[in-house]
Amino acid sequence: MKKIITVVIAVLSGLSTFAQLPDPGFTVDSRTAIVITDPQNDFLSPNGVTWGVVGESVTANNTVENLEELFKIAKKKNITVFVSPHYYFKHDHNWKIEGALEALMHKINMFDRTHVLKIDGFEGSGADWLDRYKKYIEEDNVIVTNPHKVYGPESNDLALQLRKHGFDNVILAGMSSNLCTESHMRDLVESGFRVSVVKDATAGAILPGLNAYEASVVNFQMIASHVFTTKEIVKEINDFKK
Amino acid sequence: MKKIITVVIAVLSGLSTFAQLPDPGFTVDSRTAIVITDPQNDFLSPNGVTWGVVGESVTANNTVENLEELFKIAKKKNITVFVSPHYYFKHDHNWKIEGALEALMHKINMFDRTHVLKIDGFEGSGADWLDRYKKYIEEDNVIVTNPHKVYGPESNDLALQLRKHGFDNVILAGMSSNLCTESHMRDLVESGFRVSVVKDATAGAILPGLNAYEASVVNFQMIASHVFTTKEIVKEINDFKK
Amino acid sequence: MKKIITVVIAVLSGLSTFAQLPDPGFTVDSRTAIVITDPQNDFLSPNGVTWGVVGESVTANNTVENLEELFKIAKKKNITVFVSPHYYFKHDHNWKIEGALEALMHKINMFDRTHVLKIDGFEGSGADWLDRYKKYIEEDNVIVTNPHKVYGPESNDLALQLRKHGFDNVILAGMSSNLCTESHMRDLVESGFRVSVVKDATAGAILPGLNAYEASVVNFQMIASHVFTTKEIVKEINDFKK
Amino acid sequence: MKKIITVVIAVLSGLSTFAQLPDPGFTVDSRTAIVITDPQNDFLSPNGVTWGVVGESVTANNTVENLEELFKIAKKKNITVFVSPHYYFKHDHNWKIEGALEALMHKINMFDRTHVLKIDGFEGSGADWLDRYKKYIEEDNVIVTNPHKVYGPESNDLALQLRKHGFDNVILAGMSSNLCTESHMRDLVESGFRVSVVKDATAGAILPGLNAYEASVVNFQMIASHVFTTKEIVKEINDFKK
Repeated sequence: MKKIITVVIAVLSGLSTFAQLPDPGFTVDSRTAIVITDPQNDFLSPNGVTWGVVGESVTANNTVENLEELFKIAKKKNITVFVSPHYYFKHDHNWKIEGALEALMHKINMFDRTHVLKIDGFEGSGADWLDRYKKYIEEDNVIVTNPHKVYGPESNDLALQLRKHGFDNVILAGMSSNLCTESHMRDLVESGFRVSVVKDATAGAILPGLNAYEASVVNFQMIASHVFTTKEIVKEINDFKK
Repeated sequence: MKKIITVVIAVLSGLSTFAQLPDPGFTVDSRTAIVITDPQNDFLSPNGVTWGVVGESVTANNTVENLEELFKIAKKKNITVFVSPHYYFKHDHNWKIEGALEALMHKINMFDRTHVLKIDGFEGSGADWLDRYKKYIEEDNVIVTNPHKVYGPESNDLALQLRKHGFDNVILAGMSSNLCTESHMRDLVESGFRVSVVKDATAGAILPGLNAYEASVVNFQMIASHVFTTKEIVKEINDFKK
Repeated sequence: MKKIITVVIAVLSGLSTFAQLPDPGFTVDSRTAIVITDPQNDFLSPNGVTWGVVGESVTANNTVENLEELFKIAKKKNITVFVSPHYYFKHDHNWKIEGALEALMHKINMFDRTHVLKIDGFEGSGADWLDRYKKYIEEDNVIVTNPHKVYGPESNDLALQLRKHGFDNVILAGMSSNLCTESHMRDLVESGFRVSVVKDATAGAILPGLNAYEASVVNFQMIASHVFTTKEIVKEINDFKK
Repeated sequence: MKKIITVVIAVLSGLSTFAQLPDPGFTVDSRTAIVITDPQNDFLSPNGVTWGVVGESVTANNTVENLEELFKIAKKKNITVFVSPHYYFKHDHNWKIEGALEALMHKINMFDRTHVLKIDGFEGSGADWLDRYKKYIEEDNVIVTNPHKVYGPESNDLALQLRKHGFDNVILAGMSSNLCTESHMRDLVESGFRVSVVKDATAGAILPGLNAYEASVVNFQMIASHVFTTKEIVKEINDFKK
C-alpha cells in the first residue's frame, strides 16, 4: 500500500514537474556568439540534393530568410558568427564505418569537394554557401571553422575557436535540425557552453512516418537553455548594449 | 525551364532516395560490445523520480525485461557489457550553466550521491542499479565506466575503455532514449564506432505535446548503422560463433 | 647568394625571436581555478610505489610542501581547486593496448582500487590522498573529478566541471610532471583554457639518462601561458581581490 | 624499522622496475597507418621561419630524408599515410588566449594562409608542403586531414579518419618533436590508439638551456608503445605481408 502511494506520488510529481519543464533562460551578453551549421546549397537551395525532403520544412519555417536575419543583425551589432560547414572529400567516400544518413550523403554526393587544397568546381556547387549569404560570410565578424565530418563539432575546431575568442554562450541555428544542428547543440553542451537554439532558423527532413524537424524541436526544448524564434532573438540582440 | 526541371528531379530523386533510407547493417563479431546507459532506479523503478513521465514508455516497450535479456545473453555468450552510469554529486548542483533537463534533474535530486569516495546511502537509492540487474553487473563480463555528467560519454572513459579492450562495434541500449542513449549514440559515432541501437531496450519521456521516445526513434533510424529489436539482437548474438 | 642570405636571416631572426620566447602572462581573476593532478601516496609518499624514481625530484622541488601551500592559499582566498585523481580498477588491467609507462603502472599495481562502487582497502593505500592533504580536500572549495585513465583529462569530467563552474584560467600543479601534469596542460590548452604551471609544485622521475622533470619544464615554458614558482603564485593569489 | 625497510624496498624495486622500462612493442599489421605532422616549409625548409632554431636538429637527425623514406615505403607497400597539417588564418590571429609558442607562431606568421576557401599565395609559402614531398602527398594512399589548430589533433578529424578507415595502430613522425608530434602522440593514446614514434623522422628546437628534441625523446620512451628509428620501421613495413 505504501509502495502504491509512493508510486502515485512519483507519477503525479513527475508529471507536474515535467509539465513545468524548466527554462533556464539565455541572456545575450559580451560572451555570446552565433553558430550556424551548413548554410549551404545542398540544404537550402531548391537545386540542392536534399531539397526534395527538406524543402517543405525550409519553406514552412522561412528558414532561408530567418538565417539571413541572423547574419544581418550580427553584422549590425558586431556579434561574431561562427559558420561550421560540411564538406566531403574523395577520402571520405572510402569510410568503412557509416550510419544510415552518412551512407546516403556519400551516395548522393552531398557536400562533395574535389580536393582539400583546391577549389576547382566549388563555386555554385552544392557545397558552396547559399548565394545570398556570401556577402555576410565575407565580413570580418564571421569565422568559418574547419568542416565537421559527421554531424557534430567533435572533429573540428568550433569549440576551440569559440573559447579562444572568449565566448561561453551560443545562439545556434542552421541545417539540418535533427542532424548537424542538434549534434552541435549536444556536443557544445557537453563542452560546457550555454546553448540556445533558434527553432525557425533551422529545418529538417519530412518523410512518410518520420518528421525529423519535430523530433529536433523536442530535443531543443529538453536539452538547450532556451528556445527562441528568430523574431525573439533578433529583438534580444538588437536590445543588447555592449 | 531547365531550372524547374532540375528542381523537380531533385525533389523526386530526393524523395525516392530518402524513401530508401540506407541500412548499412550491423554484424555481431569479436570486436562487438554492448553499451547500456543509466540502468538505474531513477529511470526504471516505479519508485524512481522520473517514473511519472517515463513509466508509460518503459511499460509499453517492456524495457526492464528487454535490458535483462541483453545482460543474460551477454553473460551466456561472454560478450563484454559496458555500463555508463549517471551520478550527481554535491558540486554538480553548483553548475552555473544548465540546460532545461539538467536543471530539472538537479532540482529533483535525480541520481544524487553523497560523496565521490563514499557510498553511504547509495544502496537502494535512485542512483543505484535496478535490483534485478545487480547480479549481472557484478559479473566479470561487465565493466562500469566513470559516470557521464551531462548526457553523452564526452566526459567519461567509455570510448577509451571500448578501444583499450579492442572493440569497434557497439550495441546500444538503456535510458533514457532521447537523452543519454541518443547522446551516447551520437558521440560514439563521432568517435568512429559502428553503432546499432536496440529500440525496445530503451524508453523515453511522454508528456502532453512532447513524445521524447518517438523523437529518439527518428534519430536512431537516421544516425545509427542499424536499429534492432531486443528479439532480433538476442538472436544475432546467440547465433554468433567467436 | 640571395638564398644564402635569406637562410642566414632566417637563422638569426629565428634565434633572436626564440631567444625572446614570449611570455603571454597569467593574471589571477574571478575566472581562475587551481587544478592538481594525482596528489596521491603512490607518487608523494616514501611508501608509494614510485618513490624510488620520483623521490629525488619530489625532495629537491619541495613538492609535498609546495602543493600544501597551494591548498592552503586556495582555502584562505576561497579559490576553487579541482583534484584530478588517478585510479585503476580490475578491468583496466585487461587493456590490450598500452604504452610503456601504462604497462609499468599496471604491473606495479599503482593507484589500484578494488571496485568502482566500493572503498574496501582504499584508506591509506597508494591510491589514497597523501594524509596531510585530506583535510583540505574535504573542504567545500575542492572538487574531486572522475579519475583520468591514461595521463590527460580527455576521459574525465575536469574540463566540463571547470566550464560549468565558470572557470577559463587554470593554475596547474601535481604529479607527475611530464606525465599527468603535462598531459593535463596540453589538453586543457587544446580545450581553450589559459594555463599556467607551478614548476616546483610538481616533480618527475629521474633515471639514468632520462630526466623526466627537466623534460617537462622545457614543455611548460614552451606551451603554457606562464610558469610560476609556488612562492610567486601564492603571492599573486594572496594579492588578488575578488 | 619496518617502515624504513618498506621504503628501501620501494626505492630499490622502483629503480629496478623503471630501469627495465617496459617495451610493449609494436607490430605492423593491416590495421596500421602512418601519421605525419606538419611536413611543411616553415619547419623543414632552410627558408622556413623556424629554421634558425630547428635546423640543427633537422640536420642532425636527417629528418627531411627520413620522412621521405616513410612516404616512399608507404607508397611501395600501400600503407595509408595521414598528414595532419598546421595552418593559421586571419581569425586565428585574434585569439585572446595564447600559450608562449602560440604567441610566437602568430607573431612570426608561421603557417599563415590567406583564406579558408582560397589558395592565393599558398604555393611555395611557409605553409606549403616541402617540395620533395608533394608527389607523395598527391598519391591515393595519402589522406590530408583538417589542420590542427594548437598542437594536438583534438580539434581536427585525424582520429575520426583513422577509425573510419579501420586503423588502430599508428606510426608517428613529423614536426616538431615536442610540440605537434608529441601532442599527437599523447592525444592519440588518450583516444585508445597504439602509438609508436619514429625518433629520427622528427626534430625539435634547440636553444640555449632548452633542448626540445631531447625532452620529446624522454616522453616518446615513456608514453609510446615503442620507439623506432627510420631504418627499423622501414624494415618492419617492408617485411610486412598483408
